[in-house]
Amino acid sequence: MFKALITTVPFGDKNRTPIDLLESSGIDYLINPLNKKLTEDELSEMVQDFDVIIAGTEKISSKVMDKAPKLKMISRVGIGLDGVDLLAAEERGISVSYTPDAPTSAVAELTIGLMLSLLRSTHVSNSNMHEGSWLRIFGRRLAEVKIGIIGVGRVGTTLLNHFKGFDIGEVLVNDIEPNISLNDKFNINWVDKNKIYQDADLISIHTPLTSKTNNMIQRKQLLSMKKDAVLINTARGGIINEHDLYDVMLKGHLSGVAIDVFNQEPYNGKLAEIKRCLLTSHMGSMSIDCRTNMEIEATKEVIRFFKSESLKNRVPLDEYEMQR
Amino acid sequence: MFKALITTVPFGDKNRTPIDLLESSGIDYLINPLNKKLTEDELSEMVQDFDVIIAGTEKISSKVMDKAPKLKMISRVGIGLDGVDLLAAEERGISVSYTPDAPTSAVAELTIGLMLSLLRSTHVSNSNMHEGSWLRIFGRRLAEVKIGIIGVGRVGTTLLNHFKGFDIGEVLVNDIEPNISLNDKFNINWVDKNKIYQDADLISIHTPLTSKTNNMIQRKQLLSMKKDAVLINTARGGIINEHDLYDVMLKGHLSGVAIDVFNQEPYNGKLAEIKRCLLTSHMGSMSIDCRTNMEIEATKEVIRFFKSESLKNRVPLDEYEMQR
Repeated sequence: MFKALITTVPFGDKNRTPIDLLESSGIDYLINPLNKKLTEDELSEMVQDFDVIIAGTEKISSKVMDKAPKLKMISRVGIGLDGVDLLAAEERGISVSYTPDAPTSAVAELTIGLMLSLLRSTHVSNSNMHEGSWLRIFGRRLAEVKIGIIGVGRVGTTLLNHFKGFDIGEVLVNDIEPNISLNDKFNINWVDKNKIYQDADLISIHTPLTSKTNNMIQRKQLLSMKKDAVLINTARGGIINEHDLYDVMLKGHLSGVAIDVFNQEPYNGKLAEIKRCLLTSHMGSMSIDCRTNMEIEATKEVIRFFKSESLKNRVPLDEYEMQR
Repeated sequence: MFKALITTVPFGDKNRTPIDLLESSGIDYLINPLNKKLTEDELSEMVQDFDVIIAGTEKISSKVMDKAPKLKMISRVGIGLDGVDLLAAEERGISVSYTPDAPTSAVAELTIGLMLSLLRSTHVSNSNMHEGSWLRIFGRRLAEVKIGIIGVGRVGTTLLNHFKGFDIGEVLVNDIEPNISLNDKFNINWVDKNKIYQDADLISIHTPLTSKTNNMIQRKQLLSMKKDAVLINTARGGIINEHDLYDVMLKGHLSGVAIDVFNQEPYNGKLAEIKRCLLTSHMGSMSIDCRTNMEIEATKEVIRFFKSESLKNRVPLDEYEMQR
């Protein structure tokens, strides 16, 4: 029997459609019984009998694949492919699909919320108030700050759209290749990353995690930022060095950061000691509609594979190139 | 000598211009030495020798005015006039001015941030993370909810502008008199308040505090809201009954609230026991630029009064009518 291992959790929680789709297609499935992001070892032990993985952000390495002799397809619920060893999958003839569009709007909306929270220190005020302390903290409006966006793909572009309803200051943007066509729609300046680190008051990261972005923001980059800058990562853990971030913040650098994604998830590290850190538990895509769409899209792709229909959301070749 | 009592704090903190303006005009001044919102008694004891008050939100009653034989003018740093007994001032020939426009953009931007925080429970996730607990919470995007705005004046209209950059759901609005001219600019439905309480998923209050809005939202109105609705008050304490709000939330009603304004400030009440309450310390107007503009405008009005020039920001007659 064709069997699907669903590693990503929650799954089918707010909307049963993806589970109904699997059942009505006659696909047997198991939802991750550990109910948390799996380690490589945990997944290796679990994966033996399965034909497909409906996957989250966990690491699916060659080691995992070697324990999965039947594995023919990985369907990622989400966009990031840093967890999947695409080249190992290619060697073994394992198809990989993903859902690149579904999370965009939820991630962008969370990010705008985090920007406004950081600029006004609402997270700090909320902590103070719950501790019985009243302190009116000065903040800044979007119009008062220079905004820097690193990574202007799906999420970055959606952010620029959201800004249209606001009175905003200068917007600096960076990507591997400047996408000059965006200049017609948005009032943006393409600059190099160092310029953003040095000049922006609000820096938000929207790149994938690749060999180029891994550890991209370390002590040196953090210290080149303004002392009262705010920094957001809703992209991927590993892009900002967490230890360096903790160290510089402990010494009073940066007026606030919002981190939704971590090197190791669930996160249980020292950033939680610092009140200026607004921490969320990888909730970028966790709006009910986006999460449901992602699960349904990933599930439909598995059903297409099961029925030997052509796949709609195969990971494109340039993603493979980036891992080569 | 002409003397100004500055009750609102902070004052001249991020930008000294208002203090420089007073000094260069030869006006003597005292900044509230208690460095907190004054009670009626505290202000009564302090006010005796002063010609003008550069005022915050504290209560300036007939009792206070009776202790201030020299008082000729009140210049409010901000828009709300619920603290000032306008009729008592009128009887005594005391001029009252305010700065109605300056706080608008800062309040609206804070409010959008609070909306996005509540819809995604970032405040709850942040509390959890700081306690070492990882829990991915489902949220909703603006597109998924019905929005209800009560009070569509300066701040309410600015919110509608901010929404233009987002994909949003239905917007229900209410005011004393529907301002139908807004229908040309925005996709909104004028409804009565009860309809908003019952139907909206996200309710935000932007009315002044008057005899009509005092205690407007009590247990009955709260319980008529959806169990998973979110509610925001960045307008004035007293509009939502705090005790009733605490009671219904303790029993699990409402998925989140954001409260920036309180019956008594500094606030030190029981809402702080509930993690779903996102509490801030009256920071609506506390962006550096807005706060500075408010202080400068209020100070310039005092200087005009001092120089017997005509005033620019006298409180209009309809504000007096509302207190009659």
